[in-house]
Amino acid sequence: MRFMRFQQVGRVGLAVDAGDGWRARFLDEGGVPADVGAIAEADEAQRAAWVDHLRTGVALDADGVTCLPPSANPGKIICLGLNYRDHARELGSRPPSYPTLFGRFASSLVGHGQPLVRPRVSDTFDYEGELVLMLGRGGRHITRDDALAHVFAYGVFNDASVRDYQFRTSQWTMGKNFDATGGFGPWMVTADELPPGATGLTLETRLNGNVMQRASTNDMIFGVEKTIAIISEGITLAAGDLIVMGTPSGVGSGRKPPVYMKPGDVCEISIEGIGTLRNTVVQEA
Amino acid sequence: MRFMRFQQVGRVGLAVDAGDGWRARFLDEGGVPADVGAIAEADEAQRAAWVDHLRTGVALDADGVTCLPPSANPGKIICLGLNYRDHARELGSRPPSYPTLFGRFASSLVGHGQPLVRPRVSDTFDYEGELVLMLGRGGRHITRDDALAHVFAYGVFNDASVRDYQFRTSQWTMGKNFDATGGFGPWMVTADELPPGATGLTLETRLNGNVMQRASTNDMIFGVEKTIAIISEGITLAAGDLIVMGTPSGVGSGRKPPVYMKPGDVCEISIEGIGTLRNTVVQEA
Repeated sequence: MRFMRFQQVGRVGLAVDAGDGWRARFLDEGGVPADVGAIAEADEAQRAAWVDHLRTGVALDADGVTCLPPSANPGKIICLGLNYRDHARELGSRPPSYPTLFGRFASSLVGHGQPLVRPRVSDTFDYEGELVLMLGRGGRHITRDDALAHVFAYGVFNDASVRDYQFRTSQWTMGKNFDATGGFGPWMVTADELPPGATGLTLETRLNGNVMQRASTNDMIFGVEKTIAIISEGITLAAGDLIVMGTPSGVGSGRKPPVYMKPGDVCEISIEGIGTLRNTVVQEA
Repeated sequence: MRFMRFQQVGRVGLAVDAGDGWRARFLDEGGVPADVGAIAEADEAQRAAWVDHLRTGVALDADGVTCLPPSANPGKIICLGLNYRDHARELGSRPPSYPTLFGRFASSLVGHGQPLVRPRVSDTFDYEGELVLMLGRGGRHITRDDALAHVFAYGVFNDASVRDYQFRTSQWTMGKNFDATGGFGPWMVTADELPPGATGLTLETRLNGNVMQRASTNDMIFGVEKTIAIISEGITLAAGDLIVMGTPSGVGSGRKPPVYMKPGDVCEISIEGIGTLRNTVVQEA
């Protein structure tokens, strides 16, 4: 099943595709979940009721709407760095023995089709194609064996980074949190439609049609199970939380000469079985 | 004016002290702001109406209630590292030319009087006494001259850190986000009651009564105005967001031999004009 949050003629809606096309309802109708995170947070009965309700909504042409980030305000956005063997190498790092984690604030998110904004203070704006997962059940000290039962759905993320700000101090926070740099969408695909842990999926990033990154999610150093287990060793995870799984090699800053995103560029990230996240770069006004 | 969120016999309440003692109302009465963040987010008319409403509530003995973190779920918790000249020196870092920023998730917060939890996976649990500010007005590209008008209130924060996890990779996120490690409270004091930018205040951290940190907020490398201006260069700040301003020298890990917090320890952080945040350390069950 796929879930999408969108806007159409000023109205925000939620849509579901259960295999027979998109069906949607609008939030102003009442009784509609606020976002995909709300569906993830619901118990099974509520979730089933919402799905039934959405499936009797209006048929939707997904190309005719503006996608919004699937969650409006996730409780946590935990991102992994250096999580593909090739990417760690291109940055001159040895594959880590513990995941490198950083946080994004929800203020940095933009949906599929919305502009990625290159800030006026930098011209080192780089793409990072990534798998993102949304938890459907929280917990602390989640075991590896149990971890996949906690995943609700998977999506596509562009962890676009302002490189000079990322490396201005030891902590990457600023370069990872400029407004409108976290592409997220176009929708979330429930975990049951994908291989366990979303393994074996081809991820491809294209900049203006040129393939810049291409890898299998099998190349992740810390897979989904291990990542959930490690984070929850210290942090209580909650339904609706996002974990952004890191990017493979081929980022712009690792190229010689570097390739950074400029206004007008189109960045597309496709993950097999999930979909394609497409954003055009604009310059901050 | 001071604002406090608390719990009493299972009921959550908000209290105000406008100079004539604490007055409180409970959330289950309706028409009461959910937390101090909601007051910060309100416009002036709503804020004034809420203050009037709280001031006609019941008189409250602040010692007879359980304090809760003033905000339940702040949109952002942005923390500064290495922001006191002495502390940067004790960690062997040169004073930075740009603030070192990292994020905390709301899941790490605990109120005054609630236990700080030393996780079972580490025995390097360290205190960090800090000033915290809550924004009352958001914005992007906020100028230094205008920054203080965006601050709603100040409080006390214990940015307690699991040091081995903090330094396990280049990014401090994990060591700064264990559950129940971010002491926050006991209340927030509105900016008008303190010197501009909360400068010139003595901050003191005591562990079991022994003074471990003592500094003036004048020793901050990046003051409140500059910090707000720099962050908002890239990130839209919102009312209710927290900025945790960094710790002075004297942390446990900088001592020879190191002094870490153990179960039963009592950590108190006092900031002149604001109050004292007191937490007892317990071992994770």
